[in-house]
Amino acid sequence: MQVSGGDLQRLRQLNSLNSIRALREAPGPLTLTELATLTGLSRNSVIDVITDLCERGWIAEVEPASGGMGRPAKRYRFRADAGRVLGLDIGVHKVLAVVTDLAGRTLSSGRVAVDAHTTQRERLQAMWRAVDAALVASGLDASDLWGVAVGSIGVVNREGMVARVKALPDWEGVDLAGHLAQRLSCPTTVENDSKLAALAEQRLGVAAGVRDLVYLHAGRRPGAALILNGRLHHGFSGATGEVGLMEMTGWRTMASHLEDAPAAEGSTPEDAAGRVFTAARAGDPGALAAVDAYAHHLALGTAAMVLTLDPELVVLGGGFSRSADVLLPALRRALEPHCLRVPDIRPSTLGEECVALGAACLALDHVDEHFFSPDGSISRPAAPRRLA
Amino acid sequence: MQVSGGDLQRLRQLNSLNSIRALREAPGPLTLTELATLTGLSRNSVIDVITDLCERGWIAEVEPASGGMGRPAKRYRFRADAGRVLGLDIGVHKVLAVVTDLAGRTLSSGRVAVDAHTTQRERLQAMWRAVDAALVASGLDASDLWGVAVGSIGVVNREGMVARVKALPDWEGVDLAGHLAQRLSCPTTVENDSKLAALAEQRLGVAAGVRDLVYLHAGRRPGAALILNGRLHHGFSGATGEVGLMEMTGWRTMASHLEDAPAAEGSTPEDAAGRVFTAARAGDPGALAAVDAYAHHLALGTAAMVLTLDPELVVLGGGFSRSADVLLPALRRALEPHCLRVPDIRPSTLGEECVALGAACLALDHVDEHFFSPDGSISRPAAPRRLA
Repeated sequence: MQVSGGDLQRLRQLNSLNSIRALREAPGPLTLTELATLTGLSRNSVIDVITDLCERGWIAEVEPASGGMGRPAKRYRFRADAGRVLGLDIGVHKVLAVVTDLAGRTLSSGRVAVDAHTTQRERLQAMWRAVDAALVASGLDASDLWGVAVGSIGVVNREGMVARVKALPDWEGVDLAGHLAQRLSCPTTVENDSKLAALAEQRLGVAAGVRDLVYLHAGRRPGAALILNGRLHHGFSGATGEVGLMEMTGWRTMASHLEDAPAAEGSTPEDAAGRVFTAARAGDPGALAAVDAYAHHLALGTAAMVLTLDPELVVLGGGFSRSADVLLPALRRALEPHCLRVPDIRPSTLGEECVALGAACLALDHVDEHFFSPDGSISRPAAPRRLA
Repeated sequence: MQVSGGDLQRLRQLNSLNSIRALREAPGPLTLTELATLTGLSRNSVIDVITDLCERGWIAEVEPASGGMGRPAKRYRFRADAGRVLGLDIGVHKVLAVVTDLAGRTLSSGRVAVDAHTTQRERLQAMWRAVDAALVASGLDASDLWGVAVGSIGVVNREGMVARVKALPDWEGVDLAGHLAQRLSCPTTVENDSKLAALAEQRLGVAAGVRDLVYLHAGRRPGAALILNGRLHHGFSGATGEVGLMEMTGWRTMASHLEDAPAAEGSTPEDAAGRVFTAARAGDPGALAAVDAYAHHLALGTAAMVLTLDPELVVLGGGFSRSADVLLPALRRALEPHCLRVPDIRPSTLGEECVALGAACLALDHVDEHFFSPDGSISRPAAPRRLA
């Protein structure tokens, strides 16, 4: 068989790719022998690849464990600190930016409070202040970022524009992708916030490793998102999980069952649901009935998605999921009459950083596609900048 | 860089794989130069790969076009006739087997009539008679088949058993995968019939190239199936597209709007809908109202799936799709109040071979995974048997 220079280049790239992948996915550092077994490469090829990847900063040698007999085998790890991404959450009440490493670990964050009356212009300024704060906190420049993703309320189209948003009329039509491009040179992505919360739970949270799931945003503004075959499902126009638009689900008005319950009397709209869940937890019959009425409607929309998709898992997220101890059993009971098989239902665990973390996960997906896919460019990335 | 024997083997396999893929996907035969451009391989490597693949029967040289100046360049094509798969449709009224080549082209078929009173044992016998007929018609033995897939009515679980079927109580619980294994040594798969109809439309029919679609089986027993990201979506337990189980859609009884219409008077249940569609086509007000009432309910279940998934396309299949000229506009009108964006809706084009062809497509997917994926075994398949 003839082997040309181009063929060798491809072979080397493939070997590098397989070695990096093995090191990234391993629970700990690997020896040369382990890496050869995992990749199917010869020991000599592994040495060749390892030397190159160490030089370029993708991997690092780990200090050998002391105390054993004889000379300990050298061990290597993927350098998650070789690159940085930033995830942003632009919500009604806050803008949150988080900087993570290539393993999705949070290194710093920046947060700016906003509210429903914040104008579009002010919200965009808040976005940049949150970004700057997160960068300052980790000692980075914008040019150090390998990718940025943003979660916004509303339906986000493929061009990165907020195509439709009921809660903040002033935010509709904002060209987030365009605004990001003004100050960032790395790849950027914009996505709906519930979708990113779902992604975060699947990568870092309660749904780790689950391939197909429905994420429920149970809160004052209900929503839903889908992870299918391990990937975020964007849909043709970004409008997935919109079962609440079916009148018959009652999603549009279901929160009023909580807000208008006797137990909520005198509270602000923001506090009402929490009070009712607290009363229900204490056994208050009126509050329990209100929770059941809310769960009945939440279940109608959920059943539409479960019967469509037959997912492995439903994740209960959103503000109301803080009362999952009360809400989740009510939801499960309400789903039973509608479903062939009620999927496992688990409450969200990532709390209010969920959307920003999901944005970081999406940015990492793009890094993966760019550097670590068979069509990627592992052989010619910019050298990782900040060596630890 | 050191290159070991194992590395060379991997490189050769990758080169073979990329060359076969390029030849399979090309609209016509390719020259060496074209193949080198498409695969990024050197000319010498292409010659090496081509020689090997010709010897092993995967590809063939095409007679040069005559009449040009000088010696014409050699051209090569993928041999779709190198392998054969078989697709089976086990329905209430028929069992149909089709044999196709690796491009999904039908080479032969065998058909056995059955009915709702056929016992499980008789239906299984009919299955084998249909298989034998299709094999005889193309001069093959069962051992020539590279893969077999079967579409059955009912919910089919991952073990290839019919887990639930309302229309044929006698068929519930049949272990189709087990029965197939008794006589077939090739890989076999069992799937729900509507799911395979959807797959056929996406590979060979009206939805060719569409990544995300909802398939509606509009007939006396309504159903639905999903293609997501270009692949059949099986779901956690095989029960996708079951929105008809939601009472509020009215799917369980919606066919009665057609069967009980005045225009259907005196007809058998099998003929009733056809008569009503014919009368509606002629402008009969009662028939038009019956079609609208049916479309109203069909739209409720369809809206649940469309709002969940935001698909590019809805395919209208099933027996009633033969009257798509009347039904489709009514369905579109009925969907509009429910959807943010009514997707494109197209009638199925593959007719009643749809399920068997979809089964063949699924069998071909498994052949692809086995032979043509990066983890496959292109370097060590059984040599293609029947050279044309």
